[in-house]
Amino acid sequence: MSNDERELTLTRLIDAPRENVWRCFTDPELLKRWFVPRPWTISEARVDVRPGGTSYTVMRDPDGNEYPNSGVYLEVVPKERLVVTDAYSEAWKPSDKPFFTAIMTFADEGGKTRYTAIARHWTKEDTEAHVKMGFHEGWGKAADQLEEVARSL
Amino acid sequence: MSNDERELTLTRLIDAPRENVWRCFTDPELLKRWFVPRPWTISEARVDVRPGGTSYTVMRDPDGNEYPNSGVYLEVVPKERLVVTDAYSEAWKPSDKPFFTAIMTFADEGGKTRYTAIARHWTKEDTEAHVKMGFHEGWGKAADQLEEVARSL
Repeated sequence: MSNDERELTLTRLIDAPRENVWRCFTDPELLKRWFVPRPWTISEARVDVRPGGTSYTVMRDPDGNEYPNSGVYLEVVPKERLVVTDAYSEAWKPSDKPFFTAIMTFADEGGKTRYTAIARHWTKEDTEAHVKMGFHEGWGKAADQLEEVARSL
Repeated sequence: MSNDERELTLTRLIDAPRENVWRCFTDPELLKRWFVPRPWTISEARVDVRPGGTSYTVMRDPDGNEYPNSGVYLEVVPKERLVVTDAYSEAWKPSDKPFFTAIMTFADEGGKTRYTAIARHWTKEDTEAHVKMGFHEGWGKAADQLEEVARSL
């Protein structure tokens, strides 16, 4: 099966230095401020940003219901590239459902930062489900919030 | 779901120095000599032993049918620990079927080498299928061959 059919992409030119954008991904207090589209919030965030390190976030909906998410970083190139997957809940324990792997890249572009997020899935069905769950709107709105936080630093 | 239910383990005391055992895993020419139980053979082996590097082997049955296998190394601690998964065919392309992650550890023990292989699966069904495919016999026989090659170095 082609990987293209299982891939979703978001790209944005963020009006902030790459250093700031990187901090927004790796500092849990900053991450909390943009990572889910408001009015959802992140009630807890722990990120051990190194290959094999755990990413743990708890998303909270407006009614107060909480949704924990665990993942593991596969690749970390400071200020350039971050790869994380939910296929493991910690290094190296398979999660109950390997859903996707996110590859985030950051590059300088005319004084701004080109941010690209690629979400790769194990199945075409999961890719389609991710679209229906609102991948484009959700990650797009989060990217707006990311820019807002990164500019403020 | 508990990880224990999805885990298979093989442990062996190998009568060879840890250095030699490590070489048997990381030198493709040595790997070919033991990695599948005879009379199967490995007709091709390419291993890029670093986190994110690809492991590619082709198993050949006695009739000459070939079975290619791709995986990616997740963690590499020279002479101590090697983690590889078939959940990716290369960094970081999801494979068609994430079946298992192998964690191999090597430790000195009374002048010999304690070799432990843990195979962790995403589902209980895959774990059971791996047992039926002959995990214990196959990996056990391969470990005998590993010892033979490691002792000869």
